[in-house]
Amino acid sequence: MMGFTGRRARPALRLFRNPALPMKITFLGTSSATPTLRRGLPAVALQRDGEVLLFDCGEGTQMQLQKVEVRPSRIAMLLVTHLHGDHVTGIMGLLMSLKLAGRTEPLIIHGPAGIKDYVLGSMRYLRLRVDFALSVEEVVPGDVLHRAGYDISVFPLDHTVPTLGYALEENMRPGRFNVERARALGVPEGPMWGRLQRGDCVLLPDGRTVAPAEVLGQPRRGRKIVYALDTAPCRDAISAAAGASVLIHDATFAPEEEALARQRKHSTSVEAAAIAQEAAVEQLYLTHISARYTHAAPLMRGVRRLLPTARIAHDLMDVEIPLRE
Amino acid sequence: MMGFTGRRARPALRLFRNPALPMKITFLGTSSATPTLRRGLPAVALQRDGEVLLFDCGEGTQMQLQKVEVRPSRIAMLLVTHLHGDHVTGIMGLLMSLKLAGRTEPLIIHGPAGIKDYVLGSMRYLRLRVDFALSVEEVVPGDVLHRAGYDISVFPLDHTVPTLGYALEENMRPGRFNVERARALGVPEGPMWGRLQRGDCVLLPDGRTVAPAEVLGQPRRGRKIVYALDTAPCRDAISAAAGASVLIHDATFAPEEEALARQRKHSTSVEAAAIAQEAAVEQLYLTHISARYTHAAPLMRGVRRLLPTARIAHDLMDVEIPLRE
Repeated sequence: MMGFTGRRARPALRLFRNPALPMKITFLGTSSATPTLRRGLPAVALQRDGEVLLFDCGEGTQMQLQKVEVRPSRIAMLLVTHLHGDHVTGIMGLLMSLKLAGRTEPLIIHGPAGIKDYVLGSMRYLRLRVDFALSVEEVVPGDVLHRAGYDISVFPLDHTVPTLGYALEENMRPGRFNVERARALGVPEGPMWGRLQRGDCVLLPDGRTVAPAEVLGQPRRGRKIVYALDTAPCRDAISAAAGASVLIHDATFAPEEEALARQRKHSTSVEAAAIAQEAAVEQLYLTHISARYTHAAPLMRGVRRLLPTARIAHDLMDVEIPLRE
Repeated sequence: MMGFTGRRARPALRLFRNPALPMKITFLGTSSATPTLRRGLPAVALQRDGEVLLFDCGEGTQMQLQKVEVRPSRIAMLLVTHLHGDHVTGIMGLLMSLKLAGRTEPLIIHGPAGIKDYVLGSMRYLRLRVDFALSVEEVVPGDVLHRAGYDISVFPLDHTVPTLGYALEENMRPGRFNVERARALGVPEGPMWGRLQRGDCVLLPDGRTVAPAEVLGQPRRGRKIVYALDTAPCRDAISAAAGASVLIHDATFAPEEEALARQRKHSTSVEAAAIAQEAAVEQLYLTHISARYTHAAPLMRGVRRLLPTARIAHDLMDVEIPLRE
């Protein structure tokens, strides 16, 4: 089941049932416009709570999915940044294979203005009909998609065509449960502990009420994953990425190609690192790498000085995102 | 330079300058609708005289081209069989990469009704403009595309949507030059031999005229390559494949799935072999293999009994086609 998605104001901080969910990012394609033998066209899968979100879907995405531990049947949502071919030419093939695999679960595709025409128009040309509920919904900067356990905020990027970034942020988790404090307050071990952990007040046998805040530590931040490509360096990406666990950012060029990056509205690796640093991002992954780079050295020059944890993504790279304390 | 292409009656047998041109077929993708880890979506490259013809262009074709000795810049023509996604979803990516590689040579795409809308419509959606002359021309069964040194005949196939097969046939080559006969006739060794070999009459110093037929053996047949997928077994494919050097035929299913093959308008491997046998084809390649087959055995059952030289194509398979004597 998918959560409600739509355009609503972000709700106030919620304390939310949120067990230790594993979260994993898998880079399916990390090249820019032209694929190479080692880098496919852009796509990133994010797995959380048995559900897969796909960011972009370049040509070959369905083939890459076969090489990794990501089940295409679990893809609930595809988030498209913009309508350049390298980011969307895998959609038709993916839809066709999902159909042939007998999919019945609904699928939502979000993207900028034009995504609906592209997807539905291509399906018409190819006489492709699917047997599952497919909705293609255009989003605009400022939209927030509310889903079970997390929100996705849509923000603007600075590229040659209208382009959207996506910031996925989990709801807050309750603070750590203080066993000693619960015992001192006389809360009997058992179901009441669970209710307090889940944010409910409990009534003790002696008539006293204990509130969650009395036994829980500070609420803990959810994980935050921000996807920002294709784009020149921009303030909106910095704001959206503030405090992110992971930022996946355009790094098409090495720093010496800054002029070319400006002209084509892309970023250099060092510019991406500067954005991540300013946004106090925990981990930066550089992707959308130009086919001209067969080695990481020119791209990494100057990057680790700004951000020691920065890494260049590569195809089929898996990244586990730990819970935050 | 590309030859004239258009709809004209096939010209009478021509004797043609035709040196020993190497010809090579490369299977780029050999799966049916769903790709597998070992088989990509349909595409076949044919190299001849420094030129590449591409038959179909499924998703991932541009990536497969990087793995083989086929230069994308040499692709002069793309021949599309039908508008199912697995046969065309690689076109946009290929166009994009050709553009980014700085191509200036023209490119022709031929296909059934609808190919023009699909290609030009997709380019509009993706705001893709190319800097080379791109023409997309719809063809119908019976059309013959005349090119330098060979013709391509378009024939109908029997599938769930309008589908075209293509039969490429080289012009006749002059017969073998009979050196003893030329000497006996008093033709001096040198340029006159070459002119006779190329089909011209020569005037000897003593006033006699020698015609090519006096020194050449029987004209030799050109090579003939026939591409027939997706299709149920059909008479048109048999006629078109008559005497072919190579037939590349739909073999989506093993013989025990004949009912399924009928329902989906595909062929079984044994049906493809029967067609090749009836058409007296020299070499059959079975392709468009369903993802259900991870081994060749079920597909080959009964095939070699009909046609000992039949082979199942695999991705990146190269086949040299020798000249005919």
